[in-house]
Amino acid sequence: MARIVAALGGNALGSTPDEQRERAAEAAGALAALIRQGHELVVTHGNGPQVGMIHLGLNCAAAESVIPAEIPFPECGAMSQGYIGYHLQNALLRRLRAEGLAQEVCSLVTQVVVDAGDPAFLDPGKPVGAFYSEEEAVRRMAAGDGIYKEDAGRGWRKVVPSPHPVDIVEKDSVLALLREGIVVVACGGGGIPVVKTGDGAYEGVSAVIDKDYAAACLASLVEADDLLILTAVDRVCINFGRPGQLELKTVTADEAERYADEGQFAAGSMLPKIRAAVSFVRSRPRRRAVICSLDKAALAMSGGSGTVVTA
Amino acid sequence: MARIVAALGGNALGSTPDEQRERAAEAAGALAALIRQGHELVVTHGNGPQVGMIHLGLNCAAAESVIPAEIPFPECGAMSQGYIGYHLQNALLRRLRAEGLAQEVCSLVTQVVVDAGDPAFLDPGKPVGAFYSEEEAVRRMAAGDGIYKEDAGRGWRKVVPSPHPVDIVEKDSVLALLREGIVVVACGGGGIPVVKTGDGAYEGVSAVIDKDYAAACLASLVEADDLLILTAVDRVCINFGRPGQLELKTVTADEAERYADEGQFAAGSMLPKIRAAVSFVRSRPRRRAVICSLDKAALAMSGGSGTVVTA
Repeated sequence: MARIVAALGGNALGSTPDEQRERAAEAAGALAALIRQGHELVVTHGNGPQVGMIHLGLNCAAAESVIPAEIPFPECGAMSQGYIGYHLQNALLRRLRAEGLAQEVCSLVTQVVVDAGDPAFLDPGKPVGAFYSEEEAVRRMAAGDGIYKEDAGRGWRKVVPSPHPVDIVEKDSVLALLREGIVVVACGGGGIPVVKTGDGAYEGVSAVIDKDYAAACLASLVEADDLLILTAVDRVCINFGRPGQLELKTVTADEAERYADEGQFAAGSMLPKIRAAVSFVRSRPRRRAVICSLDKAALAMSGGSGTVVTA
Repeated sequence: MARIVAALGGNALGSTPDEQRERAAEAAGALAALIRQGHELVVTHGNGPQVGMIHLGLNCAAAESVIPAEIPFPECGAMSQGYIGYHLQNALLRRLRAEGLAQEVCSLVTQVVVDAGDPAFLDPGKPVGAFYSEEEAVRRMAAGDGIYKEDAGRGWRKVVPSPHPVDIVEKDSVLALLREGIVVVACGGGGIPVVKTGDGAYEGVSAVIDKDYAAACLASLVEADDLLILTAVDRVCINFGRPGQLELKTVTADEAERYADEGQFAAGSMLPKIRAAVSFVRSRPRRRAVICSLDKAALAMSGGSGTVVTA
């Protein structure tokens, strides 16, 4: 029996409350199967569509003076943790009870520490929020509203830095809950990004932490055996969509890095999952990362699906 | 040394992110003083202005199709728990570290159970969200958007049921964290209201749970010694603003109930605090409730301020 950190994609959770409730119920089935196998579970999740919706909606309302002030990105991320955490913990508890399992489930508001000197702060690259026309994006930049870039032919979006997670403020709380057999949802959306201040406390920063890196950081800090990165495909492929396409069943960290260096994995998609997997398996001996589809998570844990990354 | 559940008002937290950060820092000073006295602490808080802002902002954006769907009230409440929890845990940690205290702090997304047969569901009475003109309120009611009522001469507002809390889904998580010496923020905004479903799980309902009643319920479930209800006045008064005004230093549950029945306390203000205090002190022998001002919380715990309610 293993301690698992499972990372769920934000896109897998849909874009409206009704969709999210349905998708959370589906995810709960896959996650409950891991608990039924006897594993200890921490769930992390992305929040791209959700934090985008919250940020866009509230700041549109602020622009029209419907609400009294703009809501900064870290606060919107905190809201998304409450919103997604509620649906996940509610759905997971329902599924556990339906299967006769007695575990409790709770979600923690989680702050993830980044280094104020992280080079990402000099080169914001993570697109967030709505798509704009080039004209509107240029107008917003001229008005001092950060940096906008063209995003894959779909329009212009605001970009924020995506620094590397180095610590998790609430890690002792996650550990305390795990020790009591409680299933924990934490680090939603990669966590609320904070930097350490001189007084040993933390301050929010405008940034987005990659949810797979945050999951790897959390997995390492809570001494997980396995990092499970749940995605839309059953296995990692090389030569994806080209002659010689090959599904990887197992790969070492060195091999995975070589493939990454060859450009085998798409930036913003499979690449961060591979990098997160590699960093986790290298953090201590006998750690495994498994990249697999959500609905085959339990099968992947018993070796029947997924790509296993080992040191 | 006592185990304390302290209930903070949502109005005390301001109405914008900047205000909330400042007010959370002030509240953190008062709460850290309780920890310095050696007490175990659970913090609950209101969310009236915050959930109102989120609900109003997002549903205005949904009406203009800026975001794809309306966000129901329970989901907005969950968002407010993330938003307020983040600022409170961040501020409290900063204050603890500044005072050389090592406690961790975390916020839990909390679901609070109400009875589907609660008579409150037949008589919605809790105003939420924005103020409207009578004309607009009538238009909204005609369009099937719930019930609106005139609110104290300030305009018309939507009203939702305010059922009584009977259980807290995540109570074992709160207990697990307390056992490890962690300061917990829970039951924000009175909790996300849910009803028990046939399968032993829970389903969200459109309602608002009074945060003082939720705090009393939580205090009882986590075996707290003291329920601290923090408000804007130093002590409960009888004959408030009239000849014979008297500050109460101590009051028994029976006396407090008699004053309440005489109409001494304002509905929606001091009355629910008194009722919550009475229900807590009657739930088990030797439990105390203290109603006091936020900045004199520690003084009240040592007997120098506040109104102490005993069984």
